[in-house]
Amino acid sequence: MRAVRNQYLLDEDDVPTHWYNILADLDVSSSDVRRARPAAQPDGDARTADRGSTGANIPLSMYRGSVGTERHVRIPDPVRAQYQRWRPTPLIRAHRLEQALDTPAHIYYKYEGANASGSHKLNSALAQAYYYKKAGVQEITTGTGAGQWGTALSMACHALDLACTVFMVNCSYRQKPYRRVLMELNGARVIPSPSGTTEAGRALLAASPDGDGSVAIANAEALEHARSVTRGAFSVGSGENHVLLHQTVIGEEALLQMESAGEFPDVVIGAMGAGSNFAGLAFPFHREKLRTGAATRLVAVEPEACPKMTRGRYAWDYNDFSGTTPMTKMYTLGHTFVAPGVHAGGLRYHGAAPLVSALYDRGLMEAVAYGQKEVFEAGAFFARTENLIPAPESAHAVKCAVDEAVRAREENRPRVILFNVSGHGLLDLSAYDQYLAGTLEDHVVSDGHIAASLAGLPALDPVGGRP
Amino acid sequence: MRAVRNQYLLDEDDVPTHWYNILADLDVSSSDVRRARPAAQPDGDARTADRGSTGANIPLSMYRGSVGTERHVRIPDPVRAQYQRWRPTPLIRAHRLEQALDTPAHIYYKYEGANASGSHKLNSALAQAYYYKKAGVQEITTGTGAGQWGTALSMACHALDLACTVFMVNCSYRQKPYRRVLMELNGARVIPSPSGTTEAGRALLAASPDGDGSVAIANAEALEHARSVTRGAFSVGSGENHVLLHQTVIGEEALLQMESAGEFPDVVIGAMGAGSNFAGLAFPFHREKLRTGAATRLVAVEPEACPKMTRGRYAWDYNDFSGTTPMTKMYTLGHTFVAPGVHAGGLRYHGAAPLVSALYDRGLMEAVAYGQKEVFEAGAFFARTENLIPAPESAHAVKCAVDEAVRAREENRPRVILFNVSGHGLLDLSAYDQYLAGTLEDHVVSDGHIAASLAGLPALDPVGGRP
Repeated sequence: MRAVRNQYLLDEDDVPTHWYNILADLDVSSSDVRRARPAAQPDGDARTADRGSTGANIPLSMYRGSVGTERHVRIPDPVRAQYQRWRPTPLIRAHRLEQALDTPAHIYYKYEGANASGSHKLNSALAQAYYYKKAGVQEITTGTGAGQWGTALSMACHALDLACTVFMVNCSYRQKPYRRVLMELNGARVIPSPSGTTEAGRALLAASPDGDGSVAIANAEALEHARSVTRGAFSVGSGENHVLLHQTVIGEEALLQMESAGEFPDVVIGAMGAGSNFAGLAFPFHREKLRTGAATRLVAVEPEACPKMTRGRYAWDYNDFSGTTPMTKMYTLGHTFVAPGVHAGGLRYHGAAPLVSALYDRGLMEAVAYGQKEVFEAGAFFARTENLIPAPESAHAVKCAVDEAVRAREENRPRVILFNVSGHGLLDLSAYDQYLAGTLEDHVVSDGHIAASLAGLPALDPVGGRP
Repeated sequence: MRAVRNQYLLDEDDVPTHWYNILADLDVSSSDVRRARPAAQPDGDARTADRGSTGANIPLSMYRGSVGTERHVRIPDPVRAQYQRWRPTPLIRAHRLEQALDTPAHIYYKYEGANASGSHKLNSALAQAYYYKKAGVQEITTGTGAGQWGTALSMACHALDLACTVFMVNCSYRQKPYRRVLMELNGARVIPSPSGTTEAGRALLAASPDGDGSVAIANAEALEHARSVTRGAFSVGSGENHVLLHQTVIGEEALLQMESAGEFPDVVIGAMGAGSNFAGLAFPFHREKLRTGAATRLVAVEPEACPKMTRGRYAWDYNDFSGTTPMTKMYTLGHTFVAPGVHAGGLRYHGAAPLVSALYDRGLMEAVAYGQKEVFEAGAFFARTENLIPAPESAHAVKCAVDEAVRAREENRPRVILFNVSGHGLLDLSAYDQYLAGTLEDHVVSDGHIAASLAGLPALDPVGGRP
């Protein structure tokens, strides 16, 4: 092997055959990572079960693997074959970033943005479309923040000949018109949220006609829409156990690639929306830490505008704005929390995935929050040195990695840093334009805002076996 | 090897060590592929030579390899090291496109869009920046059509700490604002052309204030600007022998990859702007054809809006609108030809590269022209089936490949098709939006328009050893 290697590539035969289920390695009561109560809704198809925390009909075959304690869940052959069209994704050694920072740290990043959807979201979209199709579903509806999930789902639905309706958070709909085009190109119907097409949306529009919206609102609308559709289903792109499960292909590949690089990370970093980006990379390293006793730190990075982990509460809450879904236990700012319209739309979700929350609660990972300006500064710096424009979400991980590398220089101690560039920022260049023009704003949320939102947390529901 | 393979990947050690110089295998008089007369301009640095058809000071070290008959030109180590940051690029078997077309053809495409500049242009930008830097240049100025070349050059200049000024064709500047952001993010100064900053631009603005502009006009402005700058140089992203030379890394890799696929193409297809996209893929296959006697067809695809090969004349002409550059022999519509503002801005150049023109003149390749609507239809079809949005330029190659595959079905004869997806279309989604909305227009150029432009071809200049 050459001394200065840039790319750690794998063959398509190396695409993982199994997803990793962290429940096998996490000592939690099952109720902490499952639904709190069944939702009141019509019965679904016989092959589906209303058991996920979304309150939607989740195919049993998809659900089972994500709530059991089987460590390795086999990836269905047709899903793996889809993965093999673009996976394994590259692991890149960021030589130029290291030089620019004059750091003794070795910096690696996994790049998930090279597929057509532009982000890691396609990993779960293809899996979900496969399971829903098998369960007899004909239309999938979803909410999307920055549009990455909606784009991925529209592609997956097109590939499997399923109809697709996407409620897109209004501020992203305005900021990222190209995302809409991408979804429409793949046959999806895209509706800005809050919209006039659902009761939930109409109520919010009446109160605030120019509302930025939120993922929780878009999900509430999508849920309402899905229930009005024959053989329709509501799907989410993060947070749920099964979504985090699907994303573990990222970390499984990264483990192989770090091995071929002859290193093991001292810190693994991912941006934190609801958690699938972070978990996809970090969870397999959790398993490896347990196996080898490595002291690797796992760090989730959230925006100051939506600090669910660093400033939220570990509590039972709803996933959607209308409180229709069953509750799950999570780090949350309250399901009525509407984050300021930062460009990292994918990180504006009010809660953290139950699995990530449990990991955080047990002290098995860390969380850190950054302001929008410093994140874009790091993103632009990375773009210039590594020649890759990170999505605003991914730029959060970049910022954290840069800080770690600077600390390594200050302490004059080498360390191995691994982070996830979950998507490209080519459709977010208007935000970078604002950064260059100096018009980007930070949005720090006040303690009062958070306290008010947390005060609205639901009372515990006696049904569902919660503690 | 598995039966159904999607990706043919190579290791970074497989990045070619040499570019391929087609002059070694093309029986032409040297004057046909060199400059026609020296341009009147100040002397350059001692290490540069005013010998390229651009009329600019081209570093001798870069120039030599592209006008000699040495078959293999060594890629400087620092340039190859840059290539190794993202090359080799993947060769993809388009299984889903084949299925959708129900064709017996095997379809492969080389994908050059995964690097940060989004296109193949980075191959030459990095090489040129290296040579210019070595020759003592401190600022590089260029004209760009769709913005792909400008983006690539800005990144290369940033990497080598060179200043960069880009005159961007006005219709692209308006249609593709994100391209400007990308260039500015890399420190370039971007000026819409025609502009008020040069004499050439002011004259055109006075005549037509809302002019769409053209690559020839942008180049005229860039040339004028470069001459006003101390240690400045003017660089072009296509057409010149050295640019085509740099792009042959594409075809060299594709040869290796087709070999590992166990097939050899019956037809090799590339979109035709000035020629570097087509030549980069096709030239090494020309050499291989000569070696093996294969009957592979090489096809260049141009837009109906700028049919320099299918409807132009093989003649001596200027490269820029103002007629400042030395003349070269090329298929041309006349240097004053301004193509309609189609979205494939990179294909709006009035002439074909001397090397491609010579190949075409000798009957060693074919050319075909398509209308904008059918091109976007093919591009959208490709986007949906292969999940990759081709740049409007690349969509021309897609359209031709689809036609070849359909013909294979109609004739019930298998064939192996290879084409170049030179870039992604993520920054061209407004054009796809227009396609979806049905507002896209075809622009067929009238015979009269072409005849009028060709009537303005310069008289032959006695200096420079032309026939």
